[in-house]
Amino acid sequence: MSAVRGERYDSSGLAEVVTQALDGNRRAIARLITVVEQGGQAARDVLARVYPRTGRAHLIGVTGAPGSGKSTLVNEMAKAYRRQGLEVGIVAVDPTSPFSGGAILGDRIRMRDVATDPHIFIRSMATRGSLGGLARATADAARVLDAAGYPVILIETVGAGQSEVEIAQFAHTTVVLQVPASGDEIQAIKAGILEVADIIVVNKADLPGADNAAAALEAMLDLNSVPTRLHHGRHLTAQPPAGDGDSTAQHWRPPVLKTSALRGTGVPELIDAIQAHREHQQRSGFSRLKERERVEGELREIMSRALLGELLHHLSAAELEHAVTRIVAREQDPYTAAHVLMAQARLPQDKKESTEYR
Amino acid sequence: MSAVRGERYDSSGLAEVVTQALDGNRRAIARLITVVEQGGQAARDVLARVYPRTGRAHLIGVTGAPGSGKSTLVNEMAKAYRRQGLEVGIVAVDPTSPFSGGAILGDRIRMRDVATDPHIFIRSMATRGSLGGLARATADAARVLDAAGYPVILIETVGAGQSEVEIAQFAHTTVVLQVPASGDEIQAIKAGILEVADIIVVNKADLPGADNAAAALEAMLDLNSVPTRLHHGRHLTAQPPAGDGDSTAQHWRPPVLKTSALRGTGVPELIDAIQAHREHQQRSGFSRLKERERVEGELREIMSRALLGELLHHLSAAELEHAVTRIVAREQDPYTAAHVLMAQARLPQDKKESTEYR
Repeated sequence: MSAVRGERYDSSGLAEVVTQALDGNRRAIARLITVVEQGGQAARDVLARVYPRTGRAHLIGVTGAPGSGKSTLVNEMAKAYRRQGLEVGIVAVDPTSPFSGGAILGDRIRMRDVATDPHIFIRSMATRGSLGGLARATADAARVLDAAGYPVILIETVGAGQSEVEIAQFAHTTVVLQVPASGDEIQAIKAGILEVADIIVVNKADLPGADNAAAALEAMLDLNSVPTRLHHGRHLTAQPPAGDGDSTAQHWRPPVLKTSALRGTGVPELIDAIQAHREHQQRSGFSRLKERERVEGELREIMSRALLGELLHHLSAAELEHAVTRIVAREQDPYTAAHVLMAQARLPQDKKESTEYR
Repeated sequence: MSAVRGERYDSSGLAEVVTQALDGNRRAIARLITVVEQGGQAARDVLARVYPRTGRAHLIGVTGAPGSGKSTLVNEMAKAYRRQGLEVGIVAVDPTSPFSGGAILGDRIRMRDVATDPHIFIRSMATRGSLGGLARATADAARVLDAAGYPVILIETVGAGQSEVEIAQFAHTTVVLQVPASGDEIQAIKAGILEVADIIVVNKADLPGADNAAAALEAMLDLNSVPTRLHHGRHLTAQPPAGDGDSTAQHWRPPVLKTSALRGTGVPELIDAIQAHREHQQRSGFSRLKERERVEGELREIMSRALLGELLHHLSAAELEHAVTRIVAREQDPYTAAHVLMAQARLPQDKKESTEYR
């Protein structure tokens, strides 16, 4: 693979860093994550090198709204895994996460034992300006940690919306946090949340309303008692595996757990539930199915980006500007304009293959 | 434009429906929105027909977490605009919104006066399974309402994450709802929210903590006192307009307002702030800049989708399956596999131009 114009990097130097990272060198791991975060040819080169070593870690997404206590819970989960002797990677996608250094003093003090543990690797992803690319960069950062041998990788992300779904697509197990709420608020809980959740946690269970919230969530699960993961099948390429056990084994009903991250209660039960989910997924063949689905989605995304990059390569800034001007002036609608632009891009037939596909 | 294989629709029939919709016929409008929601050639045809009539409405995004009281506030806002004699379109993207018919009885009763007003058009978008395409469909639905002559269009959407940002990209004014919160929770308010908010509303101001929340938000704005909209400039194609007034006119500091949608307080002030924002945007030239930015982003998205569709047309299911299998087996990384697939797709040189670009 040749480097793309304008990108310079020392390929042999990177190979050395990859070797060190695979040996567990923390500085090398940090550097590789920075490289994959930035994208481009160097990132693709790193990914190609680390990829054969991936696929061993358990990727656990922890998602919830700001203020739901994600970071504190992730902290407690990390400590619980450490007590099992496991090394833990943490990728924080929330810019307000204490792991990102942005948040409140009290939280940072609480995190200190985790932050200074040499068997825990913490990395926060820069979110600013990386819309769309963020889920990609996060997945690639988790891959680096996976290849480096971390058996458990916790991915902390802000709840609700697209990012939740994207994280759920590459995590093996997605934990969705809720907080105790009044009756009205519980009813307003986003229905979509049940589709991405493998495990639902009512955090801050020391507050009033925790039992109510848990009961309401169970009731919602009763209403939605179809196998939740099936909803994700937009890129489903494989048939569901022929059950080698009973067919009910394929139905995973997300358990609703109560935790108080502050008091540390409920965390061992959560760790057990995560393990049970992982085993269920593997037993039922759903993890394989989900992996194929995720991979196909990723392929589509990489190809779209590459194709657009190539096309834009054949269009001048003036041509694009002109199309924008016509659309803004309502002289042409965006779909027709896109059609015209694509035809323009193909007029000059010097079909150079751009390798810029990330 | 010819119809794509497998799609049948009566083009002349649609033309008639478009004419009726532009005349304000509610059933015709509803039908057109269904068509644009479904996508495909019929949707593109409708968009091409209505597009010249768009660009007159004020698109107002109202976003906030579940339970923040969005729907009730949107309801009050609609009533306030009606008192000004304006017709109002409402597009609800939240599946739990009472406008979507999904939610609590009390809310639905509260909405009834709005829901039965012949000068208010309410439409909720189906979110299930339309990830990614949802922002697109919502924008196109708003375009239909714009072309049909609704001068004010309220777009209600669930807070946080990608969708918030996408709605903010096509709304002219984005109102972000917060609820009163304790000290800790305020600190945890997602930083990204300040970047999309043109106006911040602390709703449920009758609850304790409203003043605290408002003060905390003002403090965060002090820290982030750069012009917020500039952060959005990823697709910025034009130079900022030469200021014909003083340069500070370009800096819009989002006002922090307090409302109690239930009691109806604060809503007139919100309506005034929305109007002030609109006028500021137009005066400073930012609305033009933002419109160009949004249009360019939309063009890129339409083209990516079209290009991927074309490419997949030249790949067999077996080829895609094989690539997925190799990636899952860690025999090839996704970037290399994408490169290989793209080369494969280009091998057979029957380069039929697919028109499936939506």
